[in-house]
Amino acid sequence: MASGTERKARVLKGFRDYLPEQMILRGQIIAIFREIFERHGFEPLDTPAIEYLDVLTGAAGENEKLMYRFEDHGGRPVGLRYDLTVPLARVVAMHQNELSMPFKRYHIAPVWRADNPQRGRFREFWQCDADIAGSASMLADAEIVSIMAEALTAVGLPEFTIRISHRRLLESLGRAAGVPEELAGVIYRSIDKLDKIGKEGVQRELVAAGVSEAAAARLLAMVTAVGPPEVLLTELRQALRDVPGAGGSIDDLAELFSLLPDFGVPADRYALDLTLARGLDYYTGPVYEATVTRPKVGSVAGAGRYDALVGTFAGRSIPATGMSLGLERIIEVVREHGLMPVPGSVAQVSVAAFPATIGAAARIARDLRAAGLRVDLSLQPNRSIGDQLKQAGRKGIPYAVIIGENEVETDRAALKDLHGGEQVEVPLADLAQALQSRLTVASENDAID
Amino acid sequence: MASGTERKARVLKGFRDYLPEQMILRGQIIAIFREIFERHGFEPLDTPAIEYLDVLTGAAGENEKLMYRFEDHGGRPVGLRYDLTVPLARVVAMHQNELSMPFKRYHIAPVWRADNPQRGRFREFWQCDADIAGSASMLADAEIVSIMAEALTAVGLPEFTIRISHRRLLESLGRAAGVPEELAGVIYRSIDKLDKIGKEGVQRELVAAGVSEAAAARLLAMVTAVGPPEVLLTELRQALRDVPGAGGSIDDLAELFSLLPDFGVPADRYALDLTLARGLDYYTGPVYEATVTRPKVGSVAGAGRYDALVGTFAGRSIPATGMSLGLERIIEVVREHGLMPVPGSVAQVSVAAFPATIGAAARIARDLRAAGLRVDLSLQPNRSIGDQLKQAGRKGIPYAVIIGENEVETDRAALKDLHGGEQVEVPLADLAQALQSRLTVASENDAID
Repeated sequence: MASGTERKARVLKGFRDYLPEQMILRGQIIAIFREIFERHGFEPLDTPAIEYLDVLTGAAGENEKLMYRFEDHGGRPVGLRYDLTVPLARVVAMHQNELSMPFKRYHIAPVWRADNPQRGRFREFWQCDADIAGSASMLADAEIVSIMAEALTAVGLPEFTIRISHRRLLESLGRAAGVPEELAGVIYRSIDKLDKIGKEGVQRELVAAGVSEAAAARLLAMVTAVGPPEVLLTELRQALRDVPGAGGSIDDLAELFSLLPDFGVPADRYALDLTLARGLDYYTGPVYEATVTRPKVGSVAGAGRYDALVGTFAGRSIPATGMSLGLERIIEVVREHGLMPVPGSVAQVSVAAFPATIGAAARIARDLRAAGLRVDLSLQPNRSIGDQLKQAGRKGIPYAVIIGENEVETDRAALKDLHGGEQVEVPLADLAQALQSRLTVASENDAID
Repeated sequence: MASGTERKARVLKGFRDYLPEQMILRGQIIAIFREIFERHGFEPLDTPAIEYLDVLTGAAGENEKLMYRFEDHGGRPVGLRYDLTVPLARVVAMHQNELSMPFKRYHIAPVWRADNPQRGRFREFWQCDADIAGSASMLADAEIVSIMAEALTAVGLPEFTIRISHRRLLESLGRAAGVPEELAGVIYRSIDKLDKIGKEGVQRELVAAGVSEAAAARLLAMVTAVGPPEVLLTELRQALRDVPGAGGSIDDLAELFSLLPDFGVPADRYALDLTLARGLDYYTGPVYEATVTRPKVGSVAGAGRYDALVGTFAGRSIPATGMSLGLERIIEVVREHGLMPVPGSVAQVSVAAFPATIGAAARIARDLRAAGLRVDLSLQPNRSIGDQLKQAGRKGIPYAVIIGENEVETDRAALKDLHGGEQVEVPLADLAQALQSRLTVASENDAID
């Protein structure tokens, strides 16, 4: 080691350290998502961070430009994964004979994109994906939507809407409105901006791109119609009766909407919203996006059916649908709006001691751990007890146990509430119990707050 | 997407997909380690996969050559982390004023090294690290050794030994034996091979490198002496009484061995073993390595004190000690020797249905999930029930619930044991309870096996 020469400690732009307090909240939220995925029988999967470059390229349009790419030690062109969907498609293709289809899997892992860092957007961020490969049924889509709703509800988001559209329906709407075929791409991009630039803005953009005033107006009227899904779908079926292929998209959506109540998705949590386009090239069917309406922070989860992607690896068509929860954005919302109580430390109790009692303290810490408690043993018996307690308080540990010589002789310990300040003497035999009951009361109070 | 052109689905050499069955075992073992770290009050931390190249270089000798390095989109030289210790040192230096010392943290994450892949050695592998920064006390080392022992015991390793040595002691032994100062490096490398080439081999190597026959023999005698730590340390103190600095190393070890019983490490789990050198350049004090003796698979965890590494970033000395559990090797041992029961699927029950009953099946699946069960809903009501059950059995799901029209009318379900084959009718109201009691019995039988 080049000792003596100081190295500059710094982190690349767009990257972050997650210090304990942040990690504790991340861990809580990831555990909730994992629990929900597993409750639905989704199996865990992990794939390499580094893949052959040609495995990663070809499917993701814009995102590919943001890919970290380099040559490995053998001169092979490689890249860091920029999502978890392309690796899933590769895995399903490689293991199609071993995997029992439909294959339901979840994958919680970091991905990398050399994007311009901005608030809530990072170059390394985690995705929490749940996908179903090998089923073309709308049952699969209904299950994905229900998982999305459960996950967002479980982290305490008070209000959100899952907007549901269909990738091919927007094309059909364009045709029905009289937009020339070659302008389909323009439609996607313009409609996508509806939230930002309003109806008039979109109308102007469409006209500027060569769509007639009348066609643009018709398109906008159909896309922005509001009402119960069944009613809107009936109207659409009528309006698109002469557009080839439109019937299939409407059938998909009608079936999906009829399934969602059985899958337990509350009616106020989803809506048919044809303004939803979703950027990724690989979607082929229904698409979904969860938008948080209170606090108003925008999209926190995206999903959709991509029936052709796996086939680019597998050589045969394997339909798939799935979703991605935007962990970073969700954490930001939960944190800013205090939706979940977050302890400052994983430790529930700190054990402070004197030089003469550190051995006894280590043994008592062990007993408390055996009883299921998370125990920080002070490693500084040479410091004053006051200092040791201050240290524990700074870390956010709620309770301390003080092991003095008197206490060791009488088989007792001093138990101190580091928030409230009260201190009581407790027989060692009752210590774990005393701590557990105090911690239970504290967490119930948190829940009531 | 380049539809029509098939992409070749493959994984880079030295990298692996973790399919569900592997992931379930990985998840179980990681959860055990995390639980033990948190029981000891260690806080979670995560750091970026990509770091400035100069942050990563300078500390790790051999490992640096194996680092994946490239330029990012801004032309900055960057690398993928090859361990979790250097990033910890950087974090402690950057946040030394916020972090409460001693800072106990754990970090469970992948690292990358472009090593030659071989059995049990991969280019992407996970480390499970627990470290304490900001304490020079042997209390910190005792806690690290105790965590190592608890972790290996918890995953069911029937026999292992934590070998304990001291980085500076081997140097002192060399001096005492009369080995010229400039041959210290030779000593490390040769002694490290003792297991492979035996005493005679090491003796030959040392002599070939210029150490006298007598000095080599004296060194080997001291290094390979066997006995209780207190006895050996007393003998060493006598033998090294004239070697400057040797007393400090011996004091460290004597204190550490006196602490281990209070920290709950059973006496048959550790031994003083001066043949342990450990390759990493940054160790400065006691070093540890856990060797599994049955099954005989070698080293599964390494640790040691590195009091100078953080200082290369911090500009002031911050002592630290810590350990790394070799997850991949441990998983291999647990798997090959069947040390933990591993279910084939996270799902505990599959719900099969007919097209007319799929809505009811979805509702029943929901109720079972609400009762805490992990439920796979069959998405293939058009297939025969026999097919659906076969599918569930192939996935390794132990139970199935069949929802037919009769069952819906009578508020009952057929509950089938997919291993044993028995099938019973159960009222819907009792279904969750019936499954839970069967699963409890099954897991108790697993535990007895």
